[in-house]
Amino acid sequence: MLDKVLNAKSVAIIGASKNKTKRGYQAIKTLKADGFEGEIYPVNPKEDMILGLRCFKDITEIEGPVDLALITTPARTIPNIIRKCGEKKVAGAVIIAGGFRELGATGKELEQQVVTAAKETGVRLIGPNTSGMINLKSNLNLVGIQNAPKGNIALLCQSGNMALTLITEATVRKHEGFTYYVGVGNEADIKFHEYLEFFRNDPDTKAILMYVEGMSEGRKFLQEAHNTSKEKPIILLKSGRSATGKKSAGSHTGSLAGMSEVAKLAYERAGIIVIENSDELFPVAETLSSQSAIKNNSIAILADGGGHATIAADLLSDYGVNLPELSDKTKEKLRKILPDAASVVNPVDVAGGTDSDPSLFADCAKIILKDPNVGGLLVVGLFGGYGIRFEKSLAIGEEAAAHRLGAMVKKRNKPIFMHSLYGSYESRALDLLRHYDIPVHDSLDISCKSVASLCKYGNYLKSYHAKTNFIFNWRDKAKEEGQQIIDNAKKEGRHVLLEHEAKQLIMLHGAPTSVGQVAKTEDEAWQIANKIKGNVVLKIVSPDILHKSDAKGVKLNLGSENEVKKGFRQIIKSAKDYSPDADIRGVLVAPMARKGLEVIIGTKIDEQFGPVIMYGLGGIMVEIMKDVTFWVLPVSPTSSKKMLEDTKSSVLLDGVRGQKGYDKKTLKKLISMCSELIESYPEIEEMDLNPVILYEQGLDVVDARIILKK
Amino acid sequence: MLDKVLNAKSVAIIGASKNKTKRGYQAIKTLKADGFEGEIYPVNPKEDMILGLRCFKDITEIEGPVDLALITTPARTIPNIIRKCGEKKVAGAVIIAGGFRELGATGKELEQQVVTAAKETGVRLIGPNTSGMINLKSNLNLVGIQNAPKGNIALLCQSGNMALTLITEATVRKHEGFTYYVGVGNEADIKFHEYLEFFRNDPDTKAILMYVEGMSEGRKFLQEAHNTSKEKPIILLKSGRSATGKKSAGSHTGSLAGMSEVAKLAYERAGIIVIENSDELFPVAETLSSQSAIKNNSIAILADGGGHATIAADLLSDYGVNLPELSDKTKEKLRKILPDAASVVNPVDVAGGTDSDPSLFADCAKIILKDPNVGGLLVVGLFGGYGIRFEKSLAIGEEAAAHRLGAMVKKRNKPIFMHSLYGSYESRALDLLRHYDIPVHDSLDISCKSVASLCKYGNYLKSYHAKTNFIFNWRDKAKEEGQQIIDNAKKEGRHVLLEHEAKQLIMLHGAPTSVGQVAKTEDEAWQIANKIKGNVVLKIVSPDILHKSDAKGVKLNLGSENEVKKGFRQIIKSAKDYSPDADIRGVLVAPMARKGLEVIIGTKIDEQFGPVIMYGLGGIMVEIMKDVTFWVLPVSPTSSKKMLEDTKSSVLLDGVRGQKGYDKKTLKKLISMCSELIESYPEIEEMDLNPVILYEQGLDVVDARIILKK
Repeated sequence: MLDKVLNAKSVAIIGASKNKTKRGYQAIKTLKADGFEGEIYPVNPKEDMILGLRCFKDITEIEGPVDLALITTPARTIPNIIRKCGEKKVAGAVIIAGGFRELGATGKELEQQVVTAAKETGVRLIGPNTSGMINLKSNLNLVGIQNAPKGNIALLCQSGNMALTLITEATVRKHEGFTYYVGVGNEADIKFHEYLEFFRNDPDTKAILMYVEGMSEGRKFLQEAHNTSKEKPIILLKSGRSATGKKSAGSHTGSLAGMSEVAKLAYERAGIIVIENSDELFPVAETLSSQSAIKNNSIAILADGGGHATIAADLLSDYGVNLPELSDKTKEKLRKILPDAASVVNPVDVAGGTDSDPSLFADCAKIILKDPNVGGLLVVGLFGGYGIRFEKSLAIGEEAAAHRLGAMVKKRNKPIFMHSLYGSYESRALDLLRHYDIPVHDSLDISCKSVASLCKYGNYLKSYHAKTNFIFNWRDKAKEEGQQIIDNAKKEGRHVLLEHEAKQLIMLHGAPTSVGQVAKTEDEAWQIANKIKGNVVLKIVSPDILHKSDAKGVKLNLGSENEVKKGFRQIIKSAKDYSPDADIRGVLVAPMARKGLEVIIGTKIDEQFGPVIMYGLGGIMVEIMKDVTFWVLPVSPTSSKKMLEDTKSSVLLDGVRGQKGYDKKTLKKLISMCSELIESYPEIEEMDLNPVILYEQGLDVVDARIILKK
Repeated sequence: MLDKVLNAKSVAIIGASKNKTKRGYQAIKTLKADGFEGEIYPVNPKEDMILGLRCFKDITEIEGPVDLALITTPARTIPNIIRKCGEKKVAGAVIIAGGFRELGATGKELEQQVVTAAKETGVRLIGPNTSGMINLKSNLNLVGIQNAPKGNIALLCQSGNMALTLITEATVRKHEGFTYYVGVGNEADIKFHEYLEFFRNDPDTKAILMYVEGMSEGRKFLQEAHNTSKEKPIILLKSGRSATGKKSAGSHTGSLAGMSEVAKLAYERAGIIVIENSDELFPVAETLSSQSAIKNNSIAILADGGGHATIAADLLSDYGVNLPELSDKTKEKLRKILPDAASVVNPVDVAGGTDSDPSLFADCAKIILKDPNVGGLLVVGLFGGYGIRFEKSLAIGEEAAAHRLGAMVKKRNKPIFMHSLYGSYESRALDLLRHYDIPVHDSLDISCKSVASLCKYGNYLKSYHAKTNFIFNWRDKAKEEGQQIIDNAKKEGRHVLLEHEAKQLIMLHGAPTSVGQVAKTEDEAWQIANKIKGNVVLKIVSPDILHKSDAKGVKLNLGSENEVKKGFRQIIKSAKDYSPDADIRGVLVAPMARKGLEVIIGTKIDEQFGPVIMYGLGGIMVEIMKDVTFWVLPVSPTSSKKMLEDTKSSVLLDGVRGQKGYDKKTLKKLISMCSELIESYPEIEEMDLNPVILYEQGLDVVDARIILKK
């Protein structure tokens, strides 16, 4: 439990100082200035008093309990200090110093010493290499950023500068603020998912805002995020996508940025609102922390001019938000109160109707929000600026409208968003809207992104994803016979299953394929082939030949006795030429697959998220169009349906140009079978089913490769 | 020439009023308040004096010359007023009223009357349905937006609200302003390209900022944009992409939004900086109006912390900007002045080096800008806020740095961009940067977009595109024989060329294909087929059968005499069954094409941009992946190279998986041949070469269809 750490009632400043330029001075000054409600204990062997507080030679000298230590001394001093903290039964320590993992091997070694000291003493660590943490509820400010606005967002950040940016933005926007800020730093001890759990349980936190460069326990984070996002939204920006970005992130937090493709899909599956544009990060969090999710993905636009409405309609369409038709009743009512030139379809354009009385906005909003097709309202244009742009007295009507809009949101539980090009001006009407928790933005882009995020979160809460999880029940569904195949390979010192072993394993779990039989002689090959209906394929069986084609170890589409026997001889010869010492077990004889649609399925262990699966169409689609999707395992048959839909080429599965489609049902089963397999046999490192050939009815796994962990 | 219109020295206000809520009052008040340097003539038959000025009963009563009339009266009154203006030899009129084309058929009719009156009298029209125009140089403010900042950007806008937004943004940002604003409205008379030409010739205008919903003379605009962007940058946002956006744009300006695919590529080919996010519109214009273009697409990042640098590196990579390696010399020099923990690769991270003296930023910038690999510098982080965040006295160092940065930009002619999270705070250092024309943004996204735009413009100026144009020399390259084919079809009352005619026409211009011969009887068919090496294809020849396959009028891959003759009979029979009255001219006998890579080339007349061409790979790539590109014609062989590169599948042309590639040279020639054909025969409405089969050497146009204008 991090409660004692993040809600500390007493804090020791190790490295306390009288020097005004030192962190050990500033920290104490800030705690006093901000009115921290708990005890402050400066620690410095050379001082007696600092800023009017008694200074202790050593943390163990302090009489009362100490919940948290802020350590401002250099990297090399930290392991010993942590042990001292342990002696004093301190719950947690914030380590500011850099000079650890982010600097390479020596730093990594030192960081390990710090972690060991922490584990042995039970002290939990924030950092190292962090700007610190703030608990705004108790004024426990260990960062020194002054006047950070209080509110209901928890900020979890892997860059001190980004934290400062977001806090500054909140200050400028004058609406929403924070419960906590934690700079996670190198994540040496306390991980992202543990902070997340704490914030999930904190009743004052309504949304969690995260900036991430890389994380060490991706899978645990996903599980916790999944639990959390059902209760409160998580808004996240992950940087370090590009090669240079990764390099920069690397030198910053010392952690590798993960495969961005996998990460984004996985985050979204866990209900996280993923942001790609840093300008949107705070405004979206502000929206999600104060508004109810939109449940029907549908928004109406109300405008006092065309341009803004056109741009907003474009953006919302890009984001996949519906702009529903308004009901006839709604249109009729709007027509009654608006000028003839007005447009009463969605977007609604008042066409000058508000020029003489902007309180008409509230009348329109009331009518529109009553429409059952409409899940929320985006007002775009000049609202809040009529008194500035035209005539001072118009501000009265705007203020009246603002009060009514505020009441409306509460009554209907449908959010209103206000875009106003006067968003950065002094406007009483806009301040009133902020008071009523109606988001105000002077950017159309950010207004639309806020709307879209609230729709996305609403969509998630209703989705299948919200009902699933990321938990494996390792070995639960393993089969004895399957385990034997794996154990046998390991006994032989192999970490690659032979093709027929891999096929046996997937067949055990219900995959439709034919193993074929291994022939030792050409006569045996023909005996097997002769029993198979149609032509056959021959493939070399050798634990030493991984790439069968390279060794010319594959012969396709053989029919006659002569073809089969000759094929056998050629394969054996080629294999021996290719690798004279290879352990050749024989030749696999299997039915030749019919023509169909080629797809590829593969699994691997991602360093951040653990087991992941890839699906895509074979050939040109995967090689050139990169039309594949990566998902974190496990995947159910229902999830695998969504995987298929992730690829552009999925329309091919349904049949195009009058062709019949392919057996999607069996394909989905095969994908979830892969998931089951990985869950059953944790020994598996990688699996490749390539190609899988789809038919109108059924499919065939033509080649299967399974690599075990070394 | 629009000089007299946009630089009017005298203006009549038609519909002048004493009523303070009327536009006819506000306009006069604004002109007087802003200090318009010319004459103001109120016109209203019912008044004698308005705001201390003599009011005329009729415009013709005015004694002195009148350059411009602002007409504030309703739509129906306009045609007569324009004729009156003509009598008075007024050069131009601004028509504020809506109620024209944007309202449908009746409005369109009225608009036509207005245009006719203008054409007959020589009065040029701004609008109708516009918020007006401002000449900020002479304080000719006919809009009533007060305190619009003066500067060097010309604003051309199809939405009054967007104009107000952009002008408000300029006011808030306190850096750059405008020479002119023109609300083009319905573009009934003066078109976008005419305004553009005027701004190109205006010495005070350094950049042109455009918001477009739709334009009526796309091709002329492209030509003028191409001329202009060589001299000064054009920054443009085109809205109305989405179905709803189009609907909204339609009700707003009454013009159809064009095919966005074609438009974007065409704009970029004309050198226009196309913006998709309205937040970026003004800042990018601000940057381009004040900075020299970056010629080597290369930027260095200088940061005082990791997070911002990581995000910036990601964004710049997304935008295709290089982050070059710094030279060893540069790195060495940086190492000397920065702390050990600093990163001296690009992005450079000062790692606390600036904490005690932010003037170190200028030292770093000096070293970095001297590096020949570096085209410009983006500084990210807290600059300008050290005095706010940490210690007041640090502001001195920041100011010193600002002066030096300003001098550096001038000396090196390499731009510096400043991202500062204190961008919206009062900061002397940031104000100094603005004074030295260094763009300051508190948004990382916008900073990076500004950098990218300056690179993009630099890339354009060096590119092949900048040397080409959009001008057709109609019929210049037409061939007599080709003209005869077209004339012959027209004589027969056909607007579709028969396949062999179309093939003859493209062969005349050098396309590699074989026309084949038309057989009237089965014997003749076999005689022709017998002379052809390899198998043949038979196709029905009938001006009444456009879709040959639907009529079962095609037989592929026929070899023997029996096959050919039987094929002939079947085709004739199927054709007669399909269309008993069809004029059947015979059956085309042509060589069967070899297997190769199928591509599609097509041309059509776009309603906005005139002749355009489409290229893409055939089959699944075009149908499912939409991997095609549209270009405005003409295209040279060099441009067609770029067309190929526009498609993701272009890598296939070079050969993948060890395969040899295809004959790109001949393909490029074929594309530019299509361009030549359209230029030669303006009768052509559409042309389809589908499929074209590519080989390692050469290609074959298997089917060709040409449709003539009706």
